[in-house]
Amino acid sequence: MRSLLTTLRRCQPRRLPSSLSSSPFPLLASEVMWRRSLQTAATQQRPLLAANLERRLTEHPRPLKPNNELVFGHTFSDHMFMAEWSADKGWSNPLIKPYGKISLEPSAVVFHYAFECFEGLKAYKDAQGRIRLFRPDMNMSRLLRSTLRLTLPAFDTEELLACLKELLKVEKRWIPEGRGYSLYIRPTMIGTQESLGVGPSNRAMLFIICSPVGPYYRTGFNAVSLSARTDAVRAWPGGTGDYKLGLNYAPCIKLQLEAAKEGYQQNLWLFGNDHQITEVGTMNCFVFLKNEHGERELVTPPLDGTILPGVTRDSILALAREWNEFKVSERAINMKEVLQASQEGRLIEMFGAGTACIVSPDGWVEAETRESMKR
Amino acid sequence: MRSLLTTLRRCQPRRLPSSLSSSPFPLLASEVMWRRSLQTAATQQRPLLAANLERRLTEHPRPLKPNNELVFGHTFSDHMFMAEWSADKGWSNPLIKPYGKISLEPSAVVFHYAFECFEGLKAYKDAQGRIRLFRPDMNMSRLLRSTLRLTLPAFDTEELLACLKELLKVEKRWIPEGRGYSLYIRPTMIGTQESLGVGPSNRAMLFIICSPVGPYYRTGFNAVSLSARTDAVRAWPGGTGDYKLGLNYAPCIKLQLEAAKEGYQQNLWLFGNDHQITEVGTMNCFVFLKNEHGERELVTPPLDGTILPGVTRDSILALAREWNEFKVSERAINMKEVLQASQEGRLIEMFGAGTACIVSPDGWVEAETRESMKR
Repeated sequence: MRSLLTTLRRCQPRRLPSSLSSSPFPLLASEVMWRRSLQTAATQQRPLLAANLERRLTEHPRPLKPNNELVFGHTFSDHMFMAEWSADKGWSNPLIKPYGKISLEPSAVVFHYAFECFEGLKAYKDAQGRIRLFRPDMNMSRLLRSTLRLTLPAFDTEELLACLKELLKVEKRWIPEGRGYSLYIRPTMIGTQESLGVGPSNRAMLFIICSPVGPYYRTGFNAVSLSARTDAVRAWPGGTGDYKLGLNYAPCIKLQLEAAKEGYQQNLWLFGNDHQITEVGTMNCFVFLKNEHGERELVTPPLDGTILPGVTRDSILALAREWNEFKVSERAINMKEVLQASQEGRLIEMFGAGTACIVSPDGWVEAETRESMKR
Repeated sequence: MRSLLTTLRRCQPRRLPSSLSSSPFPLLASEVMWRRSLQTAATQQRPLLAANLERRLTEHPRPLKPNNELVFGHTFSDHMFMAEWSADKGWSNPLIKPYGKISLEPSAVVFHYAFECFEGLKAYKDAQGRIRLFRPDMNMSRLLRSTLRLTLPAFDTEELLACLKELLKVEKRWIPEGRGYSLYIRPTMIGTQESLGVGPSNRAMLFIICSPVGPYYRTGFNAVSLSARTDAVRAWPGGTGDYKLGLNYAPCIKLQLEAAKEGYQQNLWLFGNDHQITEVGTMNCFVFLKNEHGERELVTPPLDGTILPGVTRDSILALAREWNEFKVSERAINMKEVLQASQEGRLIEMFGAGTACIVSPDGWVEAETRESMKR
């Protein structure tokens, strides 16, 4: 029998339900109000407009790397997109220019207070050689949510997407062919105010870089093993775990190394006294089990403020609901339930889902409960 | 009667108890082990050595700004300190060079995953024109704690302090004179690996910049008013609120603006269902009250993992304990206790303490409990 994981991985974009094509993450009511107040303040400012896009192309295109030499995020294409914003003038003309260094004074707030947010999406070439993006409107609207959370400037998501498409036309030769290969796209916004007062940044830079990539994990599609710790918490209610901010990542590296030292490839992030499963590594987490009522059920934690609203997560949920072959739940699930299902032979599959890592199987999970026992 | 706040503000470094002079923040046992494992791995690497300090001084020194034109963190001195690290070579020779831009590829991890930590300390000129630092060993050891938390490279704190002192000798003319004025010093470490995989940075940059400053708040030493929200959390157990990482700052700006819109100057950060007071703005928080037993008591929240171990906090505690005139407690204190003390006329003073802001009085606090009531 083909596993759910295998089925999901074989899904081609054209087989996705049409409901997927236009459902960007809705802004919360408070975010809409926040955006409106920014826009009111910014009516005198120049907007970001794809029609103003300037092109300054390289005279020294670099050679492509063969697929088997690609390491995630190491190689970058010839060009990048850039637009700059200032509080008094608004957006500069957007620009496609040769990939190159960014120069900032050491006082720039991105170096001090983590004014940075990003997105990750992928461009593929289809059988006809056309460029395909997977639900890029989701990434654009999630980037806007992130920038507003950091009081970085707003932008029209459709204009940015139009700019990205122009960049991809220029970089088409950098989109690798072959199963599992794609051009990883990294839109990023940083605060570039050059003074140290802790407040909103009066300058910002939006850039997009592109990296030809293969599978994220060197294990390929083999299972990764997980360390489930109870003494380290990725995100908290009232925090920022549901935004794609740089600051959600650096704190996890030490724990990732500690897991590696003990032989695990990633961390399974838990929350609360009952050890709810939240995310795995840098991915959303899915558990496929036969539940206590004997039903097959695909479970992923709900978007309660501590979970990144993943594009892959959303797509898996939509696909599984359209299939209508098993129960699909966004609900809390804790270690006790997973361990019990495992012990009773009811745990069918467990996997992580994210754009960079696609859909990765989890092997086995070690629950480290020593810390919690001490409390 | 002179208030506690006024007394604290008039304290001169030479009046501080001798116990203060050499008590850097101890590393936790786990941090010591972590550092040891890094050092074992790094024995082949070049260490950071003040003896190797190189000087490349500017030929175009800039004019000083008059004290009344100084805004916190806007003006920088002629030179900066810089040292670079790579995983294979260790530390470069440290360098004092003209203040100037940092150039990094757009893939540098500091722009994506918040690999950044910093310190803030101040240099003063005493009546004899000598340069005085306030407990700089505390800042150096706290920076080391922060870098290790982010898996950025270790360094010898005494070597870095020796480098800083050399920088200050070069920049002596930039230390302003006059009460409330000083040279604010900002040591910063960033991760500079130029590839996007989420893991430890294989390159780093350590720099120190200096900014002549006056009072942080434009209100001077007038009280600031606070918005106490229960729907936003600065830090949590198992998080990183007790490290001076850039990532603790950006998420607070939106809430700061929302507070400003309602007429408050800062946020009072609460935690937990009982609304424990944790920090205020970017400062540690102190409450001076007559407690329920009729004793005068100075209370500040304990270093439980959610509180920044402040140098000013530590100094106030040491001073107050040496005075032995009232009870001094590091203990949890919640909004209910503060409000009750206020209603019963037992709240004497409430203030924030930090290097940038010194000791700032809090005016009145609005407890926004709507959110918590809804739950």
